[in-house]
Amino acid sequence: MTQVDTYMSQLGKAAREAGRLLARADTAAKNAVLEAMAAEMEAGKKAILEANAIDMKNGRERGLDAALLDRLELNDERFAGMVDGIRQVATLSDPIGEVSDMKYMPSGIQLGKMRVPLGVVGIIYESRPNVTADAAALCLKSGNAAILRGGSEAIESNMAISKCISRGLERAGLPATAVQVVETTDRAAVVKLIQMPEYVDVIVPRGGKGLIERVSADARVPVIKHLHGVCHVYIDDDADMEKAFNIAMNAKTQRYGTCNTMETLLVAESVAARVLPELASAYQDKGVELRGCAASRDLLPSMLAATAEDWDEEYLAPILSIRIVSGIDEALDHIHAHGSHHTDAIVTENYTLARRFLAEVDSSSVMVNASTRFADGFEYGLGAEIGISTDKFHVRGPVGLEGLTSQKYIVLGDGHIRQ
Amino acid sequence: MTQVDTYMSQLGKAAREAGRLLARADTAAKNAVLEAMAAEMEAGKKAILEANAIDMKNGRERGLDAALLDRLELNDERFAGMVDGIRQVATLSDPIGEVSDMKYMPSGIQLGKMRVPLGVVGIIYESRPNVTADAAALCLKSGNAAILRGGSEAIESNMAISKCISRGLERAGLPATAVQVVETTDRAAVVKLIQMPEYVDVIVPRGGKGLIERVSADARVPVIKHLHGVCHVYIDDDADMEKAFNIAMNAKTQRYGTCNTMETLLVAESVAARVLPELASAYQDKGVELRGCAASRDLLPSMLAATAEDWDEEYLAPILSIRIVSGIDEALDHIHAHGSHHTDAIVTENYTLARRFLAEVDSSSVMVNASTRFADGFEYGLGAEIGISTDKFHVRGPVGLEGLTSQKYIVLGDGHIRQ
Repeated sequence: MTQVDTYMSQLGKAAREAGRLLARADTAAKNAVLEAMAAEMEAGKKAILEANAIDMKNGRERGLDAALLDRLELNDERFAGMVDGIRQVATLSDPIGEVSDMKYMPSGIQLGKMRVPLGVVGIIYESRPNVTADAAALCLKSGNAAILRGGSEAIESNMAISKCISRGLERAGLPATAVQVVETTDRAAVVKLIQMPEYVDVIVPRGGKGLIERVSADARVPVIKHLHGVCHVYIDDDADMEKAFNIAMNAKTQRYGTCNTMETLLVAESVAARVLPELASAYQDKGVELRGCAASRDLLPSMLAATAEDWDEEYLAPILSIRIVSGIDEALDHIHAHGSHHTDAIVTENYTLARRFLAEVDSSSVMVNASTRFADGFEYGLGAEIGISTDKFHVRGPVGLEGLTSQKYIVLGDGHIRQ
Repeated sequence: MTQVDTYMSQLGKAAREAGRLLARADTAAKNAVLEAMAAEMEAGKKAILEANAIDMKNGRERGLDAALLDRLELNDERFAGMVDGIRQVATLSDPIGEVSDMKYMPSGIQLGKMRVPLGVVGIIYESRPNVTADAAALCLKSGNAAILRGGSEAIESNMAISKCISRGLERAGLPATAVQVVETTDRAAVVKLIQMPEYVDVIVPRGGKGLIERVSADARVPVIKHLHGVCHVYIDDDADMEKAFNIAMNAKTQRYGTCNTMETLLVAESVAARVLPELASAYQDKGVELRGCAASRDLLPSMLAATAEDWDEEYLAPILSIRIVSGIDEALDHIHAHGSHHTDAIVTENYTLARRFLAEVDSSSVMVNASTRFADGFEYGLGAEIGISTDKFHVRGPVGLEGLTSQKYIVLGDGHIRQ
């Protein structure tokens, strides 16, 4: 075993033990920890910002690009947001201990399900230091111990934040090992973290597609993964044209860089001539580049031609591909072939087609007459979001506190034995 | 890519396509398939039993042990049970399409969750050919395509059953590729099956601990794993002695070879002298070998001494280890250190300790005043069981049809856009 492996095993073992204490901490105790963490962060603000300044200096010297430096930087406003985020998690209702489906079985036993923590959650993220505080708060509130591994460029910031978290934990009477930040920037630490199922119950990678694919390929622990969003809006023959216009505009232009932004607009051929010219003009007013199929370019010859690659592309930019389809079957086939199982919407007034779309589209969010932009933990009332799952196993779509929990069976008897 | 890899990829691709059709099949269509499968099995009984006779002959020649040959054998009674099992799955309620938690959000959208299939399920099992029919039925009813890989010693039986399943699928209008039995006994097929996340959504290994550990170690696909059951009953200071006696006897002696059988009895020291002698005598009448800690041997010197290994042992046999503990804390520590997160029970009349035990024991089933033997899909009303999960991710405890499903979000709007 290498030195890094030994170090990570120690973190894992300590997390497993701390997780046992966290699992039995009541809501008041967990909220007290979060408040203590927030207070320690405020008290440690100077040290955290100084550490961040070192990261920024190192980053500039290493030639990090402007976008990365921007994500790395903590200023007064971001710092306040980070501390506020911890306090907001304290206001969320506690999922742990919730008992559901309690009922008597024919044998006389009373059977129900109790919600419990997963145990130890490993979070792997990139340059944003605020994820350290955010992830720690979400794991603690859901009764899980956390092992946090941030990007190497944020190591000084993360260590400074980690010290405050540890002080908060200890002040509130929980072990500092309930939240551990990996102190080495050695990449072998990540490999070990995702390959020790004896200590880690789930990995949540938060970052770009590359990170998530690397983690998923090597993990021997379940991964809650959010790969990408190639989201569609399909304007059906029976669409209300005003709703279609508004939803198609909102799904593309309300924000360009989010995973629930529409990347491809599908339009039924019977209504294409009615809706596309007006939409195209509105998109062009907003500076959205349009890339169309042959049929749509017959209507709007000024559009660029979409290539085969366009249908699979997550632009995250003011670019939209447009395809005219014969009807719902072709729309469903297109989404099946090119979608990323994230979020897809139909605009229609037709009851039967709405039902079909809801049942047959295999995506984490399927919508009727609503913008894909609603697919979001806050819009869904989760209060906070640890990630969005494009997987089907365990949890799908926006993941809040409940996604970091499991359910065990509980049985209440009165001396019952099996016959 | 090797030939086996190519073959498995073809199965995977076909299963992925068939899964799409299965996902949209309604309840009546799925039940019709199950009935057609059962009828084709009955029509093909002679061929299946002949194929089984070949497996039995080959098995005897290869020197398989008697227990394995017994599991391999199909006779009239077992054949009838297998066909009956398929028809019973048809009577279970269909989990797919169930919509829950539908509610209006502040934005005005209506948000709910719809239960959907996982997609493609891979089942890896050992010698029992009836698993082929059973697993096929459970996957179909839950809207999933299945790839089945049985033990090499049962290959003739499994292929014969597979032919009947295919005919049933086709007769009912679904593609034969909805259930595919792997036709090669090459072990590389298993390795490929568990390493193609593009085609397989979950693996369910059904068999001994060795099989499950091998599959889990190499899988790149989620695994619903059932490792082992080291189950405990803790008789508390405040236990009702009659309940304690009945539960401790039932949990050990109702069946010896099942995973929910008690392997270790923990007794609070204040009641040990009252309950242990009577229990020990009843166990000895049943031929149960007792292995005790030092304190329990002071009470009952005729017991063997338990070794350190005994506390971690799943005997699956008429053997019981007994330990006297000072109270609930030591009982919880023992279960944490030696349990397998399967099923544990407390016998107590104390409200506060019952609550603590329910909350703090990290097992898939936690019980108060009931025998561990109740931890079972049928006793829990699941109707059928594809396995028992000792994991915390996705599903815990007995796994029925619902364990083979996921939930997606559905959003109903009226032209809603995000502000």
